[in-house]
Amino acid sequence: MQHLISIKDLDCAQVQEIFNYTKKIKKHPSKYCKKLKGKILTNLFYEPSTRTSSSFHSAMNHLGGDVISINDVTYSSISKGENLEDTIITMGNYSDIIVLRSKFVGDAQRASDVSTVPIINAGDGVGEHPTQTLLDLFTIYEKFGRTYNLKVTFIGDITNGRTVKSLSKALENGCELNFRDTYNVNDLPESDVYYFTRVQRERGSEGFYEMTRDMVKRMPEDCIVMHPFPRNEEIPRWFDKDPRARYFDQMQNGLYVRMALLLSYK
Amino acid sequence: MQHLISIKDLDCAQVQEIFNYTKKIKKHPSKYCKKLKGKILTNLFYEPSTRTSSSFHSAMNHLGGDVISINDVTYSSISKGENLEDTIITMGNYSDIIVLRSKFVGDAQRASDVSTVPIINAGDGVGEHPTQTLLDLFTIYEKFGRTYNLKVTFIGDITNGRTVKSLSKALENGCELNFRDTYNVNDLPESDVYYFTRVQRERGSEGFYEMTRDMVKRMPEDCIVMHPFPRNEEIPRWFDKDPRARYFDQMQNGLYVRMALLLSYK
Amino acid sequence: MQHLISIKDLDCAQVQEIFNYTKKIKKHPSKYCKKLKGKILTNLFYEPSTRTSSSFHSAMNHLGGDVISINDVTYSSISKGENLEDTIITMGNYSDIIVLRSKFVGDAQRASDVSTVPIINAGDGVGEHPTQTLLDLFTIYEKFGRTYNLKVTFIGDITNGRTVKSLSKALENGCELNFRDTYNVNDLPESDVYYFTRVQRERGSEGFYEMTRDMVKRMPEDCIVMHPFPRNEEIPRWFDKDPRARYFDQMQNGLYVRMALLLSYK
Repeated sequence: MQHLISIKDLDCAQVQEIFNYTKKIKKHPSKYCKKLKGKILTNLFYEPSTRTSSSFHSAMNHLGGDVISINDVTYSSISKGENLEDTIITMGNYSDIIVLRSKFVGDAQRASDVSTVPIINAGDGVGEHPTQTLLDLFTIYEKFGRTYNLKVTFIGDITNGRTVKSLSKALENGCELNFRDTYNVNDLPESDVYYFTRVQRERGSEGFYEMTRDMVKRMPEDCIVMHPFPRNEEIPRWFDKDPRARYFDQMQNGLYVRMALLLSYK
Repeated sequence: MQHLISIKDLDCAQVQEIFNYTKKIKKHPSKYCKKLKGKILTNLFYEPSTRTSSSFHSAMNHLGGDVISINDVTYSSISKGENLEDTIITMGNYSDIIVLRSKFVGDAQRASDVSTVPIINAGDGVGEHPTQTLLDLFTIYEKFGRTYNLKVTFIGDITNGRTVKSLSKALENGCELNFRDTYNVNDLPESDVYYFTRVQRERGSEGFYEMTRDMVKRMPEDCIVMHPFPRNEEIPRWFDKDPRARYFDQMQNGLYVRMALLLSYK
Repeated sequence: MQHLISIKDLDCAQVQEIFNYTKKIKKHPSKYCKKLKGKILTNLFYEPSTRTSSSFHSAMNHLGGDVISINDVTYSSISKGENLEDTIITMGNYSDIIVLRSKFVGDAQRASDVSTVPIINAGDGVGEHPTQTLLDLFTIYEKFGRTYNLKVTFIGDITNGRTVKSLSKALENGCELNFRDTYNVNDLPESDVYYFTRVQRERGSEGFYEMTRDMVKRMPEDCIVMHPFPRNEEIPRWFDKDPRARYFDQMQNGLYVRMALLLSYK
């Protein structure tokens, strides 16, 4: 058994293995439709995230498995004061794998310390969200055939962005990274990847920015534009049809990367 | 691919086809238990409706498919400001069909404009709710063998009733329709169908009415009494065992009509 | 069809039959993975209980069946004023069995009076919770080979504890029972079973107590320590590894007892 708490839990070879698997699954997803038959995944979400929970739900169903969703924690034992550890042990009795989204950094690690089944960290506060990083990396890999020797610019809410923090760490050894905060988005450097992020008002961030037609004109033809979604106004919908827009691909890759990951626990 | 936004999306032949299919399924529901194996339905409910969401959930499970339920929208990306279109594209990546209940007229149409998978409108505010109309029509058809040449009286909250609006539109060409508002229920005309509706206090309606034993006595032996449910006090429980009471049949037909509809997307 | 409203609905022979079945299932759970294929269970929870609903969900999935979860009743027809009876009839149309958790004593009985499918009471206010009692009894039976001729001490929130009330009733004919309220936990009598319970602050209880190393020293080597969970501070985590701690076994047995029970409805 192997938990996935941080992207650093995976070495290069393991990431590459997941990518190879993801490519295969993406080609013929229905070939894997019985691989996890009889298995149960718990989506334990202490903080809402429709996209992430639906993606794991769909991944598990695509593999023939079932899902127990606990996403309304105000309606749970927690509200009676139960600690995370007891909840994890409980759900480990009722399911074969636990996907955990929590509010506090370190919760996923605490969970894995007591769990009898694999824990996948689906975001612990401003900490880590390794499957988001995996799908981001895969989307880059799919375009460029590599995740090194690239110029990557992160734009938006750099400070609060768990996504930015994780992805930039995963890329920092082999790539040239640039960061542009919301008030400073007009001089984007030439890049292979432009990674936009949302201003996280619910985490206390301020600011506003919007991709303009001018910015788009200055972007290379061969670059890609990414965004972890949900988006507010930072990428307007008129850009969606541009071949450089890859945020819907990220979303779709999220499904296949998670299928590959779940299969690796078989 | 074909969306179902309004009952007007279906012509008479298509409605008849769904009825024929529904009859077959109702006779031997278990024969269809693997038809949608491996398929995933998303129940995307921006407004609560246990009955409708459970009915689709059950229909999909009866056909061997899986369901992703998103019914607590305060806990979703929406609360982070995501627009309907992005949510629809997301869920289209994770599932094969989307059942949408929303708060505003026109949302289902907007959803279908961007969706890569079929959208079934399960109610858009005071707009349309075509599967409710289908199950109502089927219940009438089951009794009379036709949905024309009938006298139909609608009773209750006529103005706010999406249900009444849709069904009456579907019947207005071939039937004689009467409407009785809450303050005016004592002189019900002789009819084949009495369609009662609830006073929708949550939509700002007022009024109160209750079916009486006197009203029941004046109803023809061969009529049927319908109600889309939930009910408040307008139909008392003592009437439930009366053979003319067909509201529980409507409920059950809702399951089979939806199974037929889902199968038509195969 | 047989409802399970109270533990008293089962005679000794039926309880023994469930225990025999539970033992078999616990040995080879995967042998039963298709027994309820095509069947649907509704988890109808008017009050939150992650543990109980997840346990039934997992039990049903382990048997190959599907689950419709309704656990957020503020978002249901109820909030439009629907009565329990209509909801039960509705869900009986959409599923094969209903697990009901409600706020008021007697609700499960009312539900069973109108239901066309079996009702399992998963707690009706301060009333009954028979599957909790079954899993408690099974945990005792598993250790001692019997549920009579035992000394059992209940500790904690005796007055508000539905769990204590039910289990003590089931044991009172054959066993010697002792009760210790929160303010009086230091002179625990020698016992075979120590059954700790949580102070139910959400039901208005007060008090605080904690198992101490001294208490543990005075407990017999061959006793067992139980707790229905969730726990607060009354059993500290340092005791978890003690072989006498059986609360995690209770949790696990909950799954198998419920599988046995669901199979008895086949």
